[in-house]
Amino acid sequence: MTETKKLQDISNNLRVHSIQMTTAAGSGHPTSCMSAAEIIAYLFFDEMHYNVKDAFDPGNDEFVLSKGHAAPILWAAYAEAGIITKEKLLTLRQIDSDLEGHPTPRMEWIKIATGSLGQGLGAGVGMAIAQKMLKSSARTFVLMGDGEIAEGSVWEACNLAAHFKTNNLFAIVDVNGLGQSQQTMHGQDVVAYQKKFAAFGFESLVVDGHDLEALKNAFVYLKKSKKPKVLICKTVKGKGFSEVEGKNGWHGVPFDRKTAERALAEIGEIAEIDSAKYVKKAFKVKRLRIKKNKLKLNSYPLGEAIATRDAYGNALLNLGLADPSVVAVDGDVKNSTKAEKFFKKFPERSFECFIAEQGMTGLGLGLAAKGFIPFVATFAAFLTRAHDFFRMGAYSFTNCKFVGSHVGVSIGADGPSQMGLEDLAMFREIPGCVVLHPADAVSCEYCVKEMAEHEGICYLRTLRPKTAVLYKTGEKFPVGGSKILKKSSKDVVTVFATGITVHEALKAYNLLKKEGMYIQIIDCYSLHPVDKRGFNRAIVRTGGKAVVAEDHYPAGGLGEAVKSVVKGKNKIKHLCIKELPRSGSAEELLERYRISANSIVGAVKEMMK
Amino acid sequence: MTETKKLQDISNNLRVHSIQMTTAAGSGHPTSCMSAAEIIAYLFFDEMHYNVKDAFDPGNDEFVLSKGHAAPILWAAYAEAGIITKEKLLTLRQIDSDLEGHPTPRMEWIKIATGSLGQGLGAGVGMAIAQKMLKSSARTFVLMGDGEIAEGSVWEACNLAAHFKTNNLFAIVDVNGLGQSQQTMHGQDVVAYQKKFAAFGFESLVVDGHDLEALKNAFVYLKKSKKPKVLICKTVKGKGFSEVEGKNGWHGVPFDRKTAERALAEIGEIAEIDSAKYVKKAFKVKRLRIKKNKLKLNSYPLGEAIATRDAYGNALLNLGLADPSVVAVDGDVKNSTKAEKFFKKFPERSFECFIAEQGMTGLGLGLAAKGFIPFVATFAAFLTRAHDFFRMGAYSFTNCKFVGSHVGVSIGADGPSQMGLEDLAMFREIPGCVVLHPADAVSCEYCVKEMAEHEGICYLRTLRPKTAVLYKTGEKFPVGGSKILKKSSKDVVTVFATGITVHEALKAYNLLKKEGMYIQIIDCYSLHPVDKRGFNRAIVRTGGKAVVAEDHYPAGGLGEAVKSVVKGKNKIKHLCIKELPRSGSAEELLERYRISANSIVGAVKEMMK
Repeated sequence: MTETKKLQDISNNLRVHSIQMTTAAGSGHPTSCMSAAEIIAYLFFDEMHYNVKDAFDPGNDEFVLSKGHAAPILWAAYAEAGIITKEKLLTLRQIDSDLEGHPTPRMEWIKIATGSLGQGLGAGVGMAIAQKMLKSSARTFVLMGDGEIAEGSVWEACNLAAHFKTNNLFAIVDVNGLGQSQQTMHGQDVVAYQKKFAAFGFESLVVDGHDLEALKNAFVYLKKSKKPKVLICKTVKGKGFSEVEGKNGWHGVPFDRKTAERALAEIGEIAEIDSAKYVKKAFKVKRLRIKKNKLKLNSYPLGEAIATRDAYGNALLNLGLADPSVVAVDGDVKNSTKAEKFFKKFPERSFECFIAEQGMTGLGLGLAAKGFIPFVATFAAFLTRAHDFFRMGAYSFTNCKFVGSHVGVSIGADGPSQMGLEDLAMFREIPGCVVLHPADAVSCEYCVKEMAEHEGICYLRTLRPKTAVLYKTGEKFPVGGSKILKKSSKDVVTVFATGITVHEALKAYNLLKKEGMYIQIIDCYSLHPVDKRGFNRAIVRTGGKAVVAEDHYPAGGLGEAVKSVVKGKNKIKHLCIKELPRSGSAEELLERYRISANSIVGAVKEMMK
Repeated sequence: MTETKKLQDISNNLRVHSIQMTTAAGSGHPTSCMSAAEIIAYLFFDEMHYNVKDAFDPGNDEFVLSKGHAAPILWAAYAEAGIITKEKLLTLRQIDSDLEGHPTPRMEWIKIATGSLGQGLGAGVGMAIAQKMLKSSARTFVLMGDGEIAEGSVWEACNLAAHFKTNNLFAIVDVNGLGQSQQTMHGQDVVAYQKKFAAFGFESLVVDGHDLEALKNAFVYLKKSKKPKVLICKTVKGKGFSEVEGKNGWHGVPFDRKTAERALAEIGEIAEIDSAKYVKKAFKVKRLRIKKNKLKLNSYPLGEAIATRDAYGNALLNLGLADPSVVAVDGDVKNSTKAEKFFKKFPERSFECFIAEQGMTGLGLGLAAKGFIPFVATFAAFLTRAHDFFRMGAYSFTNCKFVGSHVGVSIGADGPSQMGLEDLAMFREIPGCVVLHPADAVSCEYCVKEMAEHEGICYLRTLRPKTAVLYKTGEKFPVGGSKILKKSSKDVVTVFATGITVHEALKAYNLLKKEGMYIQIIDCYSLHPVDKRGFNRAIVRTGGKAVVAEDHYPAGGLGEAVKSVVKGKNKIKHLCIKELPRSGSAEELLERYRISANSIVGAVKEMMK
């Protein structure tokens, strides 16, 4: 059997599976699979090297289906490769099947969940970088649809691929010309795409995506280049079934039984071919033995003024010394987030992604998918730019860590565009995401250690201004805990505070003490999960009277978290940023937006009226 | 005085102001202003037409400072133009000054808040389109920094500018080569930028950004092109003060008094020049008289099954008939969001932005800034892609409306990547944002009317599956209200529900009734603000016992909203999506993740134990 005949048989099988699966499921995107059949057949059964017995072999070429709605053909490829059974294919989209509507790592060969378009390439850049760091000759292949090329995140990823010289990255674009609701922006003007990729530093080539020999020759050509590469494939949506070929209105529409029968009649029988034997073996890679050292936390004298972002920088540096799998990623603010200490010490494990938060996050997710522990940092406000990536990161079960500096009005005069006031809501809303907001250097360092040790997505919120060290070195700050900073038998109100407001609460304590009033202060450094038991114990002590103070908007932050978990009859006053703030000094802004010591004093007194 | 001498004098004045302002404020970005001095001088005092007496003259050329950190030089230009006094400049960044650290529309000449980089061009596209729709010859100028060109949102905007043929859009890039923490990705490789813009359909030209004659000639050339245009200016950061020129480490660093003195000595005295007289008058535009008709809402028979997304499509169409300032914007899912009805009826007021949610949102914000009322829709899940644009939209006091379809696990088999489960938190966290989630077609249509009439940012959440019509046509659903769907003297528990869970609650009602148990059901269609009084009245009736059910993650949605506003001693059970969901049928998923009728029945019974 010739090479081409073999691959043509596999392509047809992939088409047949895709149609049968989606018709059985009653939903899905058969026509989006059909345009990619030859591409998938060529990649999985001629080009890619992988160990069918081990999805985590570091010598595996990686594949990311960025056009995640074509999931059926990916599952079909794994079935043809013998990784899953062909019977399993018919469980597509069933509630207990790992063959979901869009790929997630519930199926272990998936490293990155896709389905929000334009995200695959960024992760691919991170994975390709990781392969090089692991001294592997393996490569990363990312199959994109043409519609998703309109996403800016694709161009952020291209920039980073070119900048980091990831010549082991292969992007493939399936240009079938049709989006969901109409023709794509460029239709099948493949040259328009080629010009763009070329301008962004890619070696590019245009090919007929259904011509298996052309595909093979294209890869021979591309592999010679030292740049990241893109193959732009002109294809036909629904290819193989003339009734739907190249027709609008068939996106995300499965064929009914009768239509499927006509389609299968036209495509032909499943070819009796042992596709699995054509899979190329994984590259040989010496598995690196990672030697971890004990993490050393810095000590800080009580009362010393130091910003938690500085403590973060110090902790990250120590983490880098202790664990070679820790890497740092930043978005041109490393001198503000303080990741720069790590960047200077470990340039080969540091990734400056410039002002491109989606690219930065995608790269981090890709590195994490290959076993690294990335700490990805920028201003908290600008992390909102990558919200969809955190969402998808959660579905990827990522172990990536995120850090947002410059939170709240306490940043001062730069104004609202630079203030992170929605970050707690954004990360608290992700099930399982750990959210920490330490108020001093000692707790911040411990939180960084907790993040590194916690398997899963985490978010650390750091402060721009300097704050006094509150805790003795050696104190522990476990995820889900809280600290009682002030407590006496005379307490009338509990103040739940976090970050900067912990310090305002302490000032309020001194002001109130002068008047003979006492408050209990809880440092809520763990925002997700919160210390449910501790909060309840605390509020009971002050008869249900409490003030919550936070430098964050009203929804989704500490206030709602406290109110969500405390039981019984309570009277809780929530101090937070209730309107759109403006420029000013930090002190003025805390006062103006009523989260200052004076505001806490006022709230306590009002509560005691 | 020659043209060039005049503009050179103004450039120097702008530099002097920028230095004095930031030194007085003790913070800010003088060097980022200095690289743009000739560009600003040329634009404001030779190229742009505007009516200094009316920031809202439709014949004004618009200017967007996308590199918002250079705000001081923008304020300085307004002072030189006589729009604000020169004394006012020294109030930069003070808490009661509208001259904020980054531009916001608190200063009326600002139409779009900037400071989160890479957002100006998208808004500029919308503004340029609006100018054409207003039959104005005016143009839009967007000044970007080189660092922000790494943002993918810039390329989404470029695509849209080319697609919509906005030949009245002028982008200018200030390539000073230095970012915040290091050299930018391309340094001063201006050709690298030119290639990219050219590939994205822009007419482009490279010029020395400090050469006023070259700037003038460049615009003569660019204006001949029918494409959107970009001028790539090679500049020197800190230009004019040799101590800092082109040096790293001076980003966002104001000069201390002594350094400022040396800088001013080198730049020279403020030139005595009446800059204002060089401002070119606004274009003459006939103000369009907008004739509004009465909005007609459709009627639906009680019990009919119709998806709220369909009702949205119907309402939007009617709104289009009633108000010519309403426009529709979509991201290649108009057949799913159902905006397609409007698209078909009003193609000239419809903007297909393809799969580019940031570009789509930016364009909407730009249209809104020029007085249109855009309804911008996509899947709720993918709106997270534009989170930073909503944040900045709020600071722009935008009147743009957003619509997210396909929310929650009720979408079914497509899987988690397509489920909007964090949208309520994302929009509720924006102070002043109206958030509505109607459960049926009648309330949905009324909500659309409310959104159109409410001045400010709004979010509508629509459902994919069909749901029964619950309300009579003509019923009102004001912002901040709620509806009691079931109420009797025998009620033991209040169920707060929204969207799909309203229907699950009604099923639960019937199941419980068979067992002789009665529940009160509240349809919480208004999520922000919530009906604080109504919620309290309701929960009191059932002795503080309540179940909240929502198809959303735990944080930031209805559950936290209810718990935030109800007073007294309550026992509230929160049913919501508590883990990362998977593919499956809608019914199975509602059951599996415990927000189904059975789950509500279970929760009610447990509460009554």
